[in-house]
Amino acid sequence: MDILSILDIIGTFVFAISGALAAAEKRLDFFGTAFIGFITAVGGGTIRDVVLGSYPLGWVQNIIYLDAIGLGILCAMLFRKYIISLKRTFAVFDTIGIGVFTVLGLQKALLLGVHPTIAVLMGMVSAVFGGVIRDTLVNEVPLIFHKEIYAMACLSGGILFMILQYFGVAEPYTTISGVSLVIVIRVIAIRYGLQMQVWRYEEEK
Amino acid sequence: MDILSILDIIGTFVFAISGALAAAEKRLDFFGTAFIGFITAVGGGTIRDVVLGSYPLGWVQNIIYLDAIGLGILCAMLFRKYIISLKRTFAVFDTIGIGVFTVLGLQKALLLGVHPTIAVLMGMVSAVFGGVIRDTLVNEVPLIFHKEIYAMACLSGGILFMILQYFGVAEPYTTISGVSLVIVIRVIAIRYGLQMQVWRYEEEK
Amino acid sequence: MDILSILDIIGTFVFAISGALAAAEKRLDFFGTAFIGFITAVGGGTIRDVVLGSYPLGWVQNIIYLDAIGLGILCAMLFRKYIISLKRTFAVFDTIGIGVFTVLGLQKALLLGVHPTIAVLMGMVSAVFGGVIRDTLVNEVPLIFHKEIYAMACLSGGILFMILQYFGVAEPYTTISGVSLVIVIRVIAIRYGLQMQVWRYEEEK
Repeated sequence: MDILSILDIIGTFVFAISGALAAAEKRLDFFGTAFIGFITAVGGGTIRDVVLGSYPLGWVQNIIYLDAIGLGILCAMLFRKYIISLKRTFAVFDTIGIGVFTVLGLQKALLLGVHPTIAVLMGMVSAVFGGVIRDTLVNEVPLIFHKEIYAMACLSGGILFMILQYFGVAEPYTTISGVSLVIVIRVIAIRYGLQMQVWRYEEEK
Repeated sequence: MDILSILDIIGTFVFAISGALAAAEKRLDFFGTAFIGFITAVGGGTIRDVVLGSYPLGWVQNIIYLDAIGLGILCAMLFRKYIISLKRTFAVFDTIGIGVFTVLGLQKALLLGVHPTIAVLMGMVSAVFGGVIRDTLVNEVPLIFHKEIYAMACLSGGILFMILQYFGVAEPYTTISGVSLVIVIRVIAIRYGLQMQVWRYEEEK
Repeated sequence: MDILSILDIIGTFVFAISGALAAAEKRLDFFGTAFIGFITAVGGGTIRDVVLGSYPLGWVQNIIYLDAIGLGILCAMLFRKYIISLKRTFAVFDTIGIGVFTVLGLQKALLLGVHPTIAVLMGMVSAVFGGVIRDTLVNEVPLIFHKEIYAMACLSGGILFMILQYFGVAEPYTTISGVSLVIVIRVIAIRYGLQMQVWRYEEEK
């Protein structure tokens, strides 16, 4: 198993944890918590594959993803306080997950022969749509629509990947660069509290 | 037509009624009511089939499902008061629908060659996802995430089915046992007001 | 490129604008605005094609749709005030988009060999589901469920199309009639402030 597959499974595990923690804050029951953890982990990749018509889905075909999700949910339930106290460490893993999902999603789309712009979009969808579904199900306006900068980080990483590939840069350098840019932008954004600008609507009137 | 297909159609009919009644409580217009009734009836099976890449969808291929849904929505609109006064009777039919959807969904997934754990999950998805979409569309946190025990009933019925099949029990005994367990757990839960435990978040702090 | 394809692209462009404007009212950031514009434009056709298992999706295959969406979002961001001041003109284009999406969606479904009732339903889904997803993501009960009459306009246009085709009327008269009926009903509804009747729930008690 190559390094990207391992990171993909770790990313799935981390996403399941972050979904379950979000559910806990909404006071859902055990089932709701597990369900949201599951959806957060597989949502992005599922939307990507369904949109591209790429079957079978990864988590349906390979049971290891379900194991990683189950383990993540269990960890979230048992060690919630501990994980929250390690907020910074957890954010690092979450960010690695986002970077890996972005580039893996983009590569999968490219293999299916779509236009590079669609591929960059699908990379971003893979990384953020699990969180969009999570927030919608717990009845929140998705975080990435008004607070988080990470969708832009995903798009930037994807675009860098495509540019490098266009200029003939070989693997694994394209992948490493794309993933790294996602991580760097996200870390800087968290560090300095950067947010996307809100479209000033009230003030304009 | 075998007994399970007939129960499947009755389940679709009952789900359309329960969806339309939920929409009525939210004061949606006639169209919104019909739409929610429709989504509640086909949502779970649609998500299952789309995730598994199993085409064509049952309700797209066989118009009888649409007839059952239309009839269900009409009944909900015409006889709402009467149906609500028969709450207990209606809950029995609803529970039968859930049990049947669980085992039919599981069997369909198994036929497509997925891992037993995925199949159990897909059985549960078939039975509960229509309600999840219904609640999300009318802007509620889905009922099954914080109040209802029936997702657990579906998982239990699915697991029993798989265990019996593993030990060589033949049809129709596996199906009858699986459906029955879903119904029994659900009836007991309703009868004694059982709920899943909420993850105590505030108190822990 | 035929006239319907051109109208389809214009419809996509207009839907992206209306989605982006809706997002702006919710004070989403630039990314959220673009995302909602995109989803509003492609949501209906995507749900239709995924339900029918018709791959590849139009906007995945032909990059011109993405160009139209990008342009629409840009226009919404740059000329928001101007577009809002032209409310009536914009509503006309929006209505043309809805009419075209309805008949194109219906025709695509018919080509895939589904039952006429399913085809009429799919035409309506193509036209309205982008808006349903848009409203759900920004945490509103979808507009068409409680305020807007246009789902009924779509169904009426679709049914007229099927009736004319049944009686042997040839293209392009079926298409023109179907699209026109959608537009006429919608324009009358806007002009006279018609709404679907709400199911009077409280009052009945």
